[in-house]
Amino acid sequence: MYIGRVKGNVVATIKHPFLEGRKLMLVARLDLDGKETGYYDIAIDDVQAGVGDTVLIIDEGNGARQILRGSNAPVRAVIAGIVDQVMLGSS
Amino acid sequence: MYIGRVKGNVVATIKHPFLEGRKLMLVARLDLDGKETGYYDIAIDDVQAGVGDTVLIIDEGNGARQILRGSNAPVRAVIAGIVDQVMLGSS
Amino acid sequence: MYIGRVKGNVVATIKHPFLEGRKLMLVARLDLDGKETGYYDIAIDDVQAGVGDTVLIIDEGNGARQILRGSNAPVRAVIAGIVDQVMLGSS
Amino acid sequence: MYIGRVKGNVVATIKHPFLEGRKLMLVARLDLDGKETGYYDIAIDDVQAGVGDTVLIIDEGNGARQILRGSNAPVRAVIAGIVDQVMLGSS
Amino acid sequence: MYIGRVKGNVVATIKHPFLEGRKLMLVARLDLDGKETGYYDIAIDDVQAGVGDTVLIIDEGNGARQILRGSNAPVRAVIAGIVDQVMLGSS
Repeated sequence: MYIGRVKGNVVATIKHPFLEGRKLMLVARLDLDGKETGYYDIAIDDVQAGVGDTVLIIDEGNGARQILRGSNAPVRAVIAGIVDQVMLGSS
Repeated sequence: MYIGRVKGNVVATIKHPFLEGRKLMLVARLDLDGKETGYYDIAIDDVQAGVGDTVLIIDEGNGARQILRGSNAPVRAVIAGIVDQVMLGSS
Repeated sequence: MYIGRVKGNVVATIKHPFLEGRKLMLVARLDLDGKETGYYDIAIDDVQAGVGDTVLIIDEGNGARQILRGSNAPVRAVIAGIVDQVMLGSS
Repeated sequence: MYIGRVKGNVVATIKHPFLEGRKLMLVARLDLDGKETGYYDIAIDDVQAGVGDTVLIIDEGNGARQILRGSNAPVRAVIAGIVDQVMLGSS
Repeated sequence: MYIGRVKGNVVATIKHPFLEGRKLMLVARLDLDGKETGYYDIAIDDVQAGVGDTVLIIDEGNGARQILRGSNAPVRAVIAGIVDQVMLGSS
């Protein structure tokens, strides 16, 4: 899992029924200082995230399928939550 | 998943029956600005993509097998759709 | 598996029941000299680790699910243990 | 999947029965210009490839196990075919 | 799979029964010239490797679990063999 920032979305013509009608979000991976790293994923949104939101990305297929409750979902990354706070140096 | 651009294809002598007769596309990974990153995948085409097309790549084995409807397909990446538009800064 | 250092944690609004109430730890990957590499994971904590602890990270979904005893856990990384000593040059 | 060049092989003492007697090939990953990238895999050979051959590598465990017809094969990469031609800029 | 060199081991307090009593080896990934790349894994040892040994690493969870004969082993990397010889430029 990593922290990302929603940058936009992709409109695509896709045949697979699971992906039809799903919003494909562009999410930039952030480093521990909150800066974009240059890496991104296209993630399925499970939490109604919007552009600019800081989000929690699950970047593993089987875990992503659990979040989406679809054992046959053709996905690798999903927005699993909205990040409210990143707390460094304290637990 | 990531956004890629179709660069060409590979002609190979392969023994596995699932891959025989399938087109093996060379797809360059693009960054969020639409530039090639130097990374590429060989992806099975599920949507009749052509050279120069901007495409959606699913780069996880189990997800790719879902797209191809082949639970025993020896693949890791598949072209799952044609990208119509990349929308940055809006949702 | 790799050696990490706990840097803090993430507070997020997540819908999936498995993750509710779990602490999401920010863990920096260390190199063999014990320095941070710039890479990090968000890992579920299985051992009550605190900030500054050196920990053992399992960074594979199925292995992480074994540690958490949850076959449907949407995770990729877990803190599996506290590192007591790194011994280089001896076995 | 990616395009690789066979560089040699590894002779190792291994206990697992599936790997005994299998040739472990060293395969350098090539970029789209056919140059070596510095990355390599040790791949099981399914097609009698020789040093210098340009080959198709499947670099995902479940896909590799399909190629080798061994559901319990402890492998991540396999040489799935011999590349006859890389066609860039045409489809 | 890749070629690694055993650098040492990690002593950790771990709760999962599969990992208790197992030696956790620090293994540096080598390039094709036999030099360390800066990348390492913590791997479970299946072959009684010692510091300085050149070893064969299987770096995929399901494959590693096959080597260890433990379908529920929380591991991603295992030392599967001792490398006797790396042969470049010949097959």
